[in-house]
Amino acid sequence: MADALKVGIAGLGTVGASLVRIIQTRADELSRTCGRAIEIVAVTARDRTRDRGIDLSGITWFDTPQALAEKADIDVFVELMGGAEGAAADSVRIALTRGLHVVTANKALLAASGVELAKIAEEKGVLLNFEAAVAGGIPVIKALRESLTGNTVSRVYGIMNGTCNYILTRMEKEGLTFADCLKEAQRLGYAEADPTFDIEGNDTAHKLSILTTLAFGTQIAPDEIYLEGISNISIEDIHAAADLGYRIKLLGVAQRTETGIEQRVHPTMVPRDSVIAQVDGVTNAVAIESDILGELLMVGPGAGGNATASSVLGDIADIAKSRPGAQQVPVLGKPAATLAPYQRAQMQSHEGGYFIRLSVEDRTGVFASIATRMAENGISLESIVQRAKPDGSEGSKTIILVTHATMEDSVRKAVDAIKAESYLAGEPQVIRIERPQAF
Amino acid sequence: MADALKVGIAGLGTVGASLVRIIQTRADELSRTCGRAIEIVAVTARDRTRDRGIDLSGITWFDTPQALAEKADIDVFVELMGGAEGAAADSVRIALTRGLHVVTANKALLAASGVELAKIAEEKGVLLNFEAAVAGGIPVIKALRESLTGNTVSRVYGIMNGTCNYILTRMEKEGLTFADCLKEAQRLGYAEADPTFDIEGNDTAHKLSILTTLAFGTQIAPDEIYLEGISNISIEDIHAAADLGYRIKLLGVAQRTETGIEQRVHPTMVPRDSVIAQVDGVTNAVAIESDILGELLMVGPGAGGNATASSVLGDIADIAKSRPGAQQVPVLGKPAATLAPYQRAQMQSHEGGYFIRLSVEDRTGVFASIATRMAENGISLESIVQRAKPDGSEGSKTIILVTHATMEDSVRKAVDAIKAESYLAGEPQVIRIERPQAF
Repeated sequence: MADALKVGIAGLGTVGASLVRIIQTRADELSRTCGRAIEIVAVTARDRTRDRGIDLSGITWFDTPQALAEKADIDVFVELMGGAEGAAADSVRIALTRGLHVVTANKALLAASGVELAKIAEEKGVLLNFEAAVAGGIPVIKALRESLTGNTVSRVYGIMNGTCNYILTRMEKEGLTFADCLKEAQRLGYAEADPTFDIEGNDTAHKLSILTTLAFGTQIAPDEIYLEGISNISIEDIHAAADLGYRIKLLGVAQRTETGIEQRVHPTMVPRDSVIAQVDGVTNAVAIESDILGELLMVGPGAGGNATASSVLGDIADIAKSRPGAQQVPVLGKPAATLAPYQRAQMQSHEGGYFIRLSVEDRTGVFASIATRMAENGISLESIVQRAKPDGSEGSKTIILVTHATMEDSVRKAVDAIKAESYLAGEPQVIRIERPQAF
Repeated sequence: MADALKVGIAGLGTVGASLVRIIQTRADELSRTCGRAIEIVAVTARDRTRDRGIDLSGITWFDTPQALAEKADIDVFVELMGGAEGAAADSVRIALTRGLHVVTANKALLAASGVELAKIAEEKGVLLNFEAAVAGGIPVIKALRESLTGNTVSRVYGIMNGTCNYILTRMEKEGLTFADCLKEAQRLGYAEADPTFDIEGNDTAHKLSILTTLAFGTQIAPDEIYLEGISNISIEDIHAAADLGYRIKLLGVAQRTETGIEQRVHPTMVPRDSVIAQVDGVTNAVAIESDILGELLMVGPGAGGNATASSVLGDIADIAKSRPGAQQVPVLGKPAATLAPYQRAQMQSHEGGYFIRLSVEDRTGVFASIATRMAENGISLESIVQRAKPDGSEGSKTIILVTHATMEDSVRKAVDAIKAESYLAGEPQVIRIERPQAF
């Protein structure tokens, strides 16, 4: 049997502690599967004294991630600290430059510096694996990077933030407001004390930017993403969506268009009988549409110490099964030096169906005016529904429009034209509709 | 750049022809991704003269698969003929023994001889890849063999036969009989002229036996599978299932139990709001439940020339990205020589919920008798529904029971006891209920 694969781990939070426990308790099974032992020989974390319920005896403790990356006698550096800069970024750079394989769960680091790090890894002939960085336990990186080789991807989209999906699911199932569901999610540990990063879509955007690069062979461009969070979604929207045969999910979508790659994160209506519409609670799902394979959907846990550790372990095992310098999987699907510049498709030219909810004063001619503004902008309507206000109040009513596929720009112009009229009784709500290719 | 990877293909049916076309038209993209060119240098098929719409000029034609495997100057032998024995089996053995990597889509061959072939591959230090053998385009082999390393799997199950799923979906959506849906599937090319192998569950069983080995580290045992097809499912069952909140799917299920591994293929009721219940038509789905990752579900095309070719190409690309003799992924997850003997859990000891439909004469005391027979066998009932016969006929009625988790043996005894009574007006129907762990 080959020499043991020596692993150093930086970061002993929930994921790191899970990983240590699993590697230690399943040593025999792992060495049987990988053809060599996997041995944790070095660790580092912020607090040395904390009781993590794991046995660190015999493992060398380093005071900083940088020191571990630089000096530990290891084959693989595992980075589980997080953060786009600072110790995580520094130590990963040091490890790769030194010629160590790196495994990381750090989406922020990859979104910010993935191409640069991939170049170093490829120059040094080492692997940089990051399955856990997107959608936790779901092996979507492997699918895009390996299984789909040769395919031309047309669209990748998914539910990649458990916090948002939990809140939207609870709003629909229990009829609770966004604010109440957020409080509940915080109480259960599904949402941070400051939930902005999750609910405004930034977390999804980081993950999406990585998938975009793997799917389309372009450079990572997390700052070129159209971003809209879920805090604006009301129970009224969810009920109206249900009546029309849709459910609302926060999706990250990357799509090839004639003018470039469209990347967008926004609340989205998906057909109620589609498979992805059934993905509830903190569960994640990623769909990939490509020309040879067709549509592939993967559903699983998007977070959690164990599920994330499982992906990290899979990455480490891939390195253990290969021989040093032997495997040449390009880190980002294509060799980093050959990635095309990211060309952003403007959101104004996005084509799709739209749900538009208008709160209007109850007077003659309003309906006709709205229909006219739509027609003037070339928008054809699939349905128009008029609903009583949920609170039964008089004087205003709700009008819901669902459009056939049209341009974002046309919708914005039509809504602006309606806003210029005097009959609106509240801010219009616009939600994009997304349809799966196959199921 | 490394030397081109030289590929020989045996079998130029739909999948083989797709594969040739894709490799030829995407040569640049593939060599950029894999770090070396993929070149088809040898082919063989039954009929040399047939027009397949592909360009075979410059490719050496061999008269038999065996000759190609033995004499062609290739690195990888791709077997796309099918069949557990004969030319497919012979040529794969020759290729492996000669030290060539092998890629195959042949589930029957793997089910029959997978362990023997894996041993040869491992002795020779070559790869034997077979992503396309189970669930077409869905990368479930890679997930089990690589991503889930270190996990203990508790259950793997799925919809793995598109013909059956198409028929069941059409029966439910259109209210057509099994016979009518089968005819339609045959007309559309979704079912063979002799559909027995699909509709009686044998095809699913072959695929399941391969997943069982990957999931549980046991030897492949396709003949140790409890088998029940869908020809017995009536519209009445489907409607009754719907009323109770379930849908009927043909599932292959492999599960770890205290007495061994349970492998079974049978019509199954799954909760209507579960994700897998939404998988309709010819689409396939495979779920894996494991202790670290949790539940993972993958949905995608289970058949078709392109989808299957996509998986075959992914397998070839994995070989192209590795260096000869460099990677040591055990063919069946664990080294073939270390696979445990398959220990079959007896179906009689299967635990789960059951749906029982009884057609009975309409007389006093029948209800009480049925309830008594259930109680005598320790079966606790979740619901009892009495339905009028769908044809409105008098004299008999339908009673539907749904049990809480109980033993298969108890259900069989209870049903036998009921059959011994004089009031049954037709053969009882028993359908097992399966519940996903997480979604």
